[in-house]
Amino acid sequence: MDISINKDERIDDLDLKGLKIIQKEKAFRFGIDAVLLSDFANVKSKHRVIDLCTGTGIVPFLLYGKYNPKEVWGIEIQEEMEEMARRSSKLNGTEDIVKFKCADLKDKNLVKELGRFDVLTVNPPYKLNNSGIVNPNDKLAIARHEILCNLEDVIVAARRLLKDNGRMFIVHRPERLADIFSLMRKYNIEPKRVKMVQPNVNKEPNIVLVEGQRDGGAFLKWEKPLYVYDEEGNFSREIDEIYGRVK
Amino acid sequence: MDISINKDERIDDLDLKGLKIIQKEKAFRFGIDAVLLSDFANVKSKHRVIDLCTGTGIVPFLLYGKYNPKEVWGIEIQEEMEEMARRSSKLNGTEDIVKFKCADLKDKNLVKELGRFDVLTVNPPYKLNNSGIVNPNDKLAIARHEILCNLEDVIVAARRLLKDNGRMFIVHRPERLADIFSLMRKYNIEPKRVKMVQPNVNKEPNIVLVEGQRDGGAFLKWEKPLYVYDEEGNFSREIDEIYGRVK
Repeated sequence: MDISINKDERIDDLDLKGLKIIQKEKAFRFGIDAVLLSDFANVKSKHRVIDLCTGTGIVPFLLYGKYNPKEVWGIEIQEEMEEMARRSSKLNGTEDIVKFKCADLKDKNLVKELGRFDVLTVNPPYKLNNSGIVNPNDKLAIARHEILCNLEDVIVAARRLLKDNGRMFIVHRPERLADIFSLMRKYNIEPKRVKMVQPNVNKEPNIVLVEGQRDGGAFLKWEKPLYVYDEEGNFSREIDEIYGRVK
Repeated sequence: MDISINKDERIDDLDLKGLKIIQKEKAFRFGIDAVLLSDFANVKSKHRVIDLCTGTGIVPFLLYGKYNPKEVWGIEIQEEMEEMARRSSKLNGTEDIVKFKCADLKDKNLVKELGRFDVLTVNPPYKLNNSGIVNPNDKLAIARHEILCNLEDVIVAARRLLKDNGRMFIVHRPERLADIFSLMRKYNIEPKRVKMVQPNVNKEPNIVLVEGQRDGGAFLKWEKPLYVYDEEGNFSREIDEIYGRVK
């Protein structure tokens, strides 16, 4: 497949069933959040999946490679990124399954157009818009700060886009967990499972993974933390296992 | 001081400034929850402190021994336990500072009688009343299950009893953390700090400590977990330090 890439772009191999992704040389490239989120999500082959704030589409490609779901949609508000994601899907020959759409997750018509989903994943901008001076036209800032959508917008969209008892999986920062739980409860998405991620056993957690279920019953399972590095400063066995499928 | 104890009671030494506590031989005796809660709380010598669900008064005595606050009140609904706590305070010669009252924390007149407090601590019944068959007359069941008060009652009482910007410290179970955060937010007690307690680094947490501030600003600090045992199955250094002042 002949796919052109721009001068400021590169093609990265996901080391997962030959999948590749087109990313900017100097802009936001996928990181550990996307890898942990796709590992934390429970996706079955019969599922229709939607990924919000998808960027250049890393989470849809990882979910496709890991779980072989029936269909995965990635939604991204920034046209330039969504166009890259579509080119990656063409490059991977996955256009019939891994699809992208440039849209605002606040758009109520999205569910009319795409239907409802079994699983929703999201790695949203995690910084409050009031934290630090940001340029609202900066693509990186839009991906990181709550400029074009905030956490409540994300939860409202999840409520709208999930089927009854459908599951959402979100990666965020531990300091926002009171917000996440309160907003999930507000929109009847029940927190069901939490996993904290710590740099090592002696450091406070800096990433949190949360599973919520639309109209789920109240019981929250708290998993043991994931430690990224071991005592010698090498990647932990668990991280090696997670990346083993992705590298 | 000549204090009589009943046949089914024993006097335990807290190894903390000579403090002692009267407990039942065969009933609920204080455990790690009380010790962790008193260590987690921030109490200054100028503070007036109230401990809800105080049982036989372990938390007030530990707070008194550790922080030397101006006044500590313990509130307990079960008369027999509250009477034991008062005898312990007499035994310790702390009656002017460590005081107990047999009362229902749902009683709105409590604040009129006792005033408001800088710090509130609570180790509430942590099991939902619907979890398992319980005997509602069983003293142990009352201490462990939400029979006479539930989590919302506790948070409402904290709202009522705390001064502006006063702090509450609660010990509970991780699976109730969505409830704790949501109820705190509902009554404008902002979650400020969380510490998870794990049996060891490889086990999921089974205790959570939460600090909330009445009308506090939103920022949640997530501390590194406390591991109770080390890899050899001995108490960890951190636990030894906490108990070092109590043991």
